Amino acid sequence: MPVQNALYAQSGGVTATINASACGVIEAARRHKKHIARLYAARNGIVGALQEDLIDTSAETPATIRALLHTPGGAFGSCRHDLPSLPQGRAHFERLAAVFRAHNIGYFFYNGGNGSAETAHQVATILPQLGWPVISIAVPKTIDNDIVRSDSSPGFGSVAKYVATSMHEAMADLASMANSSTKVFVMEVMGRYTGWIAAACGLARPGGEDGPLLLLVPEIRFDRKHFLAAVKERIARHGWCAVAVAEGLQLRDGRRLTQAGGDGIPGHEQLGGVAPIIAAMVRSALDVKVHWSVLDYVQRSARHLASQTDVDQAYAVGEAAVGYALKGLNSVMPVIQRISDRPYRWRVVPAPVGVIMNREKRLPRSFLTADGWRLTARARRYFEPLIHGEAWPPFANGLPVHARLILKPVICRLKSTWRDTKA
Amino acid sequence: MPVQNALYAQSGGVTATINASACGVIEAARRHKKHIARLYAARNGIVGALQEDLIDTSAETPATIRALLHTPGGAFGSCRHDLPSLPQGRAHFERLAAVFRAHNIGYFFYNGGNGSAETAHQVATILPQLGWPVISIAVPKTIDNDIVRSDSSPGFGSVAKYVATSMHEAMADLASMANSSTKVFVMEVMGRYTGWIAAACGLARPGGEDGPLLLLVPEIRFDRKHFLAAVKERIARHGWCAVAVAEGLQLRDGRRLTQAGGDGIPGHEQLGGVAPIIAAMVRSALDVKVHWSVLDYVQRSARHLASQTDVDQAYAVGEAAVGYALKGLNSVMPVIQRISDRPYRWRVVPAPVGVIMNREKRLPRSFLTADGWRLTARARRYFEPLIHGEAWPPFANGLPVHARLILKPVICRLKSTWRDTKA
Repeated sequence: MPVQNALYAQSGGVTATINASACGVIEAARRHKKHIARLYAARNGIVGALQEDLIDTSAETPATIRALLHTPGGAFGSCRHDLPSLPQGRAHFERLAAVFRAHNIGYFFYNGGNGSAETAHQVATILPQLGWPVISIAVPKTIDNDIVRSDSSPGFGSVAKYVATSMHEAMADLASMANSSTKVFVMEVMGRYTGWIAAACGLARPGGEDGPLLLLVPEIRFDRKHFLAAVKERIARHGWCAVAVAEGLQLRDGRRLTQAGGDGIPGHEQLGGVAPIIAAMVRSALDVKVHWSVLDYVQRSARHLASQTDVDQAYAVGEAAVGYALKGLNSVMPVIQRISDRPYRWRVVPAPVGVIMNREKRLPRSFLTADGWRLTARARRYFEPLIHGEAWPPFANGLPVHARLILKPVICRLKSTWRDTKA
Repeated sequence: MPVQNALYAQSGGVTATINASACGVIEAARRHKKHIARLYAARNGIVGALQEDLIDTSAETPATIRALLHTPGGAFGSCRHDLPSLPQGRAHFERLAAVFRAHNIGYFFYNGGNGSAETAHQVATILPQLGWPVISIAVPKTIDNDIVRSDSSPGFGSVAKYVATSMHEAMADLASMANSSTKVFVMEVMGRYTGWIAAACGLARPGGEDGPLLLLVPEIRFDRKHFLAAVKERIARHGWCAVAVAEGLQLRDGRRLTQAGGDGIPGHEQLGGVAPIIAAMVRSALDVKVHWSVLDYVQRSARHLASQTDVDQAYAVGEAAVGYALKGLNSVMPVIQRISDRPYRWRVVPAPVGVIMNREKRLPRSFLTADGWRLTARARRYFEPLIHGEAWPPFANGLPVHARLILKPVICRLKSTWRDTKA
């Protein structure tokens, strides 16, 4: 096996633990200097690879690389950018082949979700046709938990822990206000197509099987009448009602609530936010005080409350990616395989990217009760180990400490620059 | 001094640390059984006192009371309910005197903000006129940090730590997405009349004096043109821009943005939320991708990330309240006096409720730079010690553990019930 360089890059919406995968890749690569001379990182994902905008990770100290374990965001920059297909996209792949050849890059680690996995697959399959064979590994990352073949997706456990904790705490607040003030609280979480994150809020339900918390997921079409009746019943029985709603909640006709404008009020779609629509609906129908929140980026960057399980798994898939590459596995993704629920045991296994990419794992209907409002025992068995353990970051002056990378640029070797990709 | 019972109650919007004050009151009362026979709690604030809906805190174990230190929400229920003035409100005070007399309540501890302080003052001054003297102490609590005479308000330090951390983390996320996706993130925090919480977000500014974070507070009227120019400049210079905005942001004419509908888009006012208005404004003016979040209850119940300074001060004012009562001080509030910034030293001193109640401490103009966007060094010296230290709660099964109180009801002694107060 010739000594070559490797390239790591981050893609898609970032998570609280994508940098833990970066840490896993970098630390593993450093242990295999016989095979991987230098590990570069592309700035801003595949865009940086096209632009020959590379960073030499060997300039970073071991302590800085370790600090990636507790640093949110994407330390090397991420991107929302898919490569075109062949034959139209030929120029893109020729450019990538030129950059990889110029820097003797034989290994590519692309850290992203379902869409980014296709980029990894394209690099593995198309660059050899252009005369530059590359071993390309897709490192899984997504808060959406929608990667097929992986029991859970690195990034999800931490957002699940954060939203369940936030709902747990907000319900304590709501319960104390409900007697003379707010009776309903609506919390919007991410999830355009799947309800994994909204469902994870169900872990916050304190005590009894039928606590006053309703879950609204995109997999179950929203029925206004049914929903309002459930809220009304919870208020009558418990004095209050909390609602966790996924941003992608859909009406019966398949339109999102944010597109439809909820209660027929025009103009909301341009603002986004399904929580204010639900809140306005409850307020006008039931005449009660309603509070709402939209967590947005705050939920997926909340590294201060990461799940230890998630941090461990994010690191493990990064580390495994290097191992697979050095074994010669190509176009695979290290995925999480669950061995048992209680005690929770898992391992990392390789899965072919070709069967994973561009697919989407939806929340099983069996995870919610027949009425759709609550988690089933099966769902709890699935979710609970994923939020287990607290991976507190270090703090200084009252704030979490993040890694501060040097980000040493690699000197460009190509004469031409890449202009086709809008930066 | 005769042995009497005492009554504790919680009022107004709750905080992550109001129960730490409850813990301080209860533990101090238990150390003074010679003077305070039993400490009762009113359910749902003054409403429970009127309704003779009392709880006997002596039924709770010491461990449960200690667990209040890390339990968000109001453990005994809070209320939004002001007592009427005399003479119209005479029936209310006669009812309170009857309840206090029936249960031999000689001490009253009312845990709330500026408005609730007036209730404590009314109890101290009006009940003696009706033949039942009571020593009444206002225990300070508000995330708004607007209590005059107190250097900081218990509840504020924790929300400040949470919003500064959330902004710090979200900025790491935004910085990694900005190259090909989102360039602006707007985070809305609480603060209807004051910008203390929004200003605390300024602690998140990483590194240089002029980082890409803009603060929007109610104390400075919003100027759309000036704001958009600042956002545009930050994007040009840094590639992205984060914005922290207080819910009560006002236009030049004094209307709130949420009332005015922002950019002239009708219908938004009923949904609340200034962040989506700011986001839509930036999107339409600068044609960039914008994300926004509204934290709402999540910020003020985030006990998982409380400030140790705040927990210590919340406990201390509860404990001091009992000491003041037993010394015979009446209608006072234990407030925080800062002795020095660095090292941060503070003590609790009594202040007369009469000069505190219904007033409001606004963010000093000197806390923001001349352009209004950033914290000054003076502001940093003020804020930094308030977010210092992490008071992590215990966790079990991945979620924070909260106190589970028995809430043993006290048997009613009055024949009449109270019907005038809408529950």
